[in-house]
Amino acid sequence: MKKTIWIKHAAQLATLASEGKGARSKEAMSELGLIEDGSVWIEDGVIQAVGTTKELEKRFSSFAHEAEVVDASNLLVTPGLVDPHTHVVYGGSREREFEMRLEGATYMDIMNAGGGIHATTRMTREATEEELIVQTMRRLDSFLAHGVTTVEGKSGYGMNLETELKQLRVMKKLQEQHPIDLVPTFMGAHAVPKEFKGREDEFVDHLIHDMLPVVAGEKLAEFNDVFCEKGVFTPEQSERVLEAGKRFGLIPKIHADEIESYGGAELAAKVGSISAEHLLKASDQGIKAMAKSGTIACLLPATALYLREEAAAGRKMIDEGVAVAISTDCNPGSSPTTSMPLVMNLACISMRLTPAEALTAATYNAACAINREKQVGSLEVGKQADIVLWKVKNYQELQYLFGVNHVKSVWKKGVRVV
Amino acid sequence: MKKTIWIKHAAQLATLASEGKGARSKEAMSELGLIEDGSVWIEDGVIQAVGTTKELEKRFSSFAHEAEVVDASNLLVTPGLVDPHTHVVYGGSREREFEMRLEGATYMDIMNAGGGIHATTRMTREATEEELIVQTMRRLDSFLAHGVTTVEGKSGYGMNLETELKQLRVMKKLQEQHPIDLVPTFMGAHAVPKEFKGREDEFVDHLIHDMLPVVAGEKLAEFNDVFCEKGVFTPEQSERVLEAGKRFGLIPKIHADEIESYGGAELAAKVGSISAEHLLKASDQGIKAMAKSGTIACLLPATALYLREEAAAGRKMIDEGVAVAISTDCNPGSSPTTSMPLVMNLACISMRLTPAEALTAATYNAACAINREKQVGSLEVGKQADIVLWKVKNYQELQYLFGVNHVKSVWKKGVRVV
Ligand SMILES: [Zn+2]
Ligand SMILES: [Zn+2]
Repeated sequence: MKKTIWIKHAAQLATLASEGKGARSKEAMSELGLIEDGSVWIEDGVIQAVGTTKELEKRFSSFAHEAEVVDASNLLVTPGLVDPHTHVVYGGSREREFEMRLEGATYMDIMNAGGGIHATTRMTREATEEELIVQTMRRLDSFLAHGVTTVEGKSGYGMNLETELKQLRVMKKLQEQHPIDLVPTFMGAHAVPKEFKGREDEFVDHLIHDMLPVVAGEKLAEFNDVFCEKGVFTPEQSERVLEAGKRFGLIPKIHADEIESYGGAELAAKVGSISAEHLLKASDQGIKAMAKSGTIACLLPATALYLREEAAAGRKMIDEGVAVAISTDCNPGSSPTTSMPLVMNLACISMRLTPAEALTAATYNAACAINREKQVGSLEVGKQADIVLWKVKNYQELQYLFGVNHVKSVWKKGVRVV
Repeated sequence: MKKTIWIKHAAQLATLASEGKGARSKEAMSELGLIEDGSVWIEDGVIQAVGTTKELEKRFSSFAHEAEVVDASNLLVTPGLVDPHTHVVYGGSREREFEMRLEGATYMDIMNAGGGIHATTRMTREATEEELIVQTMRRLDSFLAHGVTTVEGKSGYGMNLETELKQLRVMKKLQEQHPIDLVPTFMGAHAVPKEFKGREDEFVDHLIHDMLPVVAGEKLAEFNDVFCEKGVFTPEQSERVLEAGKRFGLIPKIHADEIESYGGAELAAKVGSISAEHLLKASDQGIKAMAKSGTIACLLPATALYLREEAAAGRKMIDEGVAVAISTDCNPGSSPTTSMPLVMNLACISMRLTPAEALTAATYNAACAINREKQVGSLEVGKQADIVLWKVKNYQELQYLFGVNHVKSVWKKGVRVV
């Protein structure tokens, strides 16, 4: 027998209905497909109908007794949130480093105490697959509790084949063990590992010839990401990494223009990257190029907050025609958070997105940024029933009453998981 | 029979033990009184013993069977948080104004649409006592869910006697109806009401002669607060308000130097204010004067974030010897949040407090700022058993894993309320 669920009487239902169009920019970012007194009809984890409660009552009157009814009175209902950029699989924890920095320690003090990204690399290399699964599971539980039902995750704390594969295999196993859908990205080019210091081109060769073929061969990743930044990988090196990935069927992503304007946004457009990340210092021509190429800007305002940087120019990017997505950037060094609701709030407060744009950026556009817009990111017939009920009466309150996780319940593929 | 509770095996117990000393400044703000494998013994809502689990096992071995045991393994345990500055009693909601501003509306557009503080004044004046109780109750529930067990609340959305009294009576009733302890402050001088525009001195006379005596006569408030800011009340007017309050036994508080450096911190020290609030633009001599007079700086980093202002110089104030407390400033216009955990995170991120200082600022020093340090703010024998169990392993993680409400359970006067 079919498992049927009827979520009804939503004070406000934000469907984000998109009818198969691609990532949204400009005015389309404000179209939430709002329905008052809204209803969603779900069979076997798939959405079968969306409309007003009246419409669905009429249509399903003879089947209503078969459905488990969920009363969403006084609640906002949205698609499950999508986090399109995380480094969620990592070993260890660095809270002591956070404290040291606030106690006045310098960058060198922390490095000498064994801190920084190399600390995470060491701890991730040392961790067993089982240990990484346990630690990551806890983080995914927190994502889910914050209304996030799909999470992209990157490798990149190994920077050697063995550990990169370990991170990607952990994601593959978690995909089976945890309700959240995980979308894997290979990011061997996250930093230059200590053992290749000063020999960046050699590392790029190694990555292209020894890592990419194995990752692609085992079908462990869908995307290929690179940290293009002065002192890490140049635009030329980054282009080589991304073009090589494309030959193996991996879609390019790029960490671009976070610290300096370095041509990252321009490169994203040039190589046909599905998204470009961070973009705090993206140039005007880079933004225009991204608008033209349809590259999604994946903006990370929690990282900017944590690092005390001016957030990316989200408002300007939308006005220029760039489709904007937002993400936690969950990672142990520059954004140890799992709260997409806070990221939406910050998108409004720090980047001047409207409440509607922030919701689009965290659902439909975020899904587009990881090639999942056919499955998730909006409430439409045939899509996965990934749905969040929020203890607020409209989408504006979700952003206005900030800093609070307003989740009431979370449904993943039609099953209540929170 | 006595109701006995034994919270045991805390991974880390932060007692904040103070032995009756006053608000903490400088190094004392980092002294958390940490106990590993900690235990708290509670009888009838009052703390009877605090120590290691071993110590308490020895001492209470013959009574252990009478106690309800709460296993705090792997958890951080702290005093209930104290929020020493809120405007939690207000009518209506202004999420649409938040959206309008992000859609590009100017200050005048919003005023013309009936927005701003005068909108809240209107809605608070129009609301019945019962309606205000219902709305405030919901906010207090959210405070409690975030580990806050004591909340200061101000009147100030009436600015006429009738409504000011209504707000204060609502707090008095909520004190009986809700587990949270409410601490009432009269703030008739929150703004100049429309009907007194251009006649500020007359309003001050009215407040002193017609409002203060009634508020004090009915014992509806313990503190008397004023908004000292250019264009609102001058330091001279503010001093008159606060000195008049003192004659009625009301302890002074002052909203000072939020928008401009205006002598507010200096005035706080001069009149012997228990605390001064905001202080974004406090002068160097004002900070020094507060250190000397022992005036607590009550800092509001969530407000600064929401208004996109540089946060107050918390780090500098502590280094200069000022005792710092922190607060949500919960209000519908400039900080619609109920999350003290986020405020602690922001104290670290934006004001460079250490994780230990942020916890002190949200517990013991916050209690001092509202004259409650004898009852709450630390876990010591004879104090109220207001206790939070957090799903983190140490106090550093509480600040480091930011943007997340890590509350596992909340105990108010020895009763589990979350
Ligand atoms: Zn990243
Ligand atoms: Zn205030």
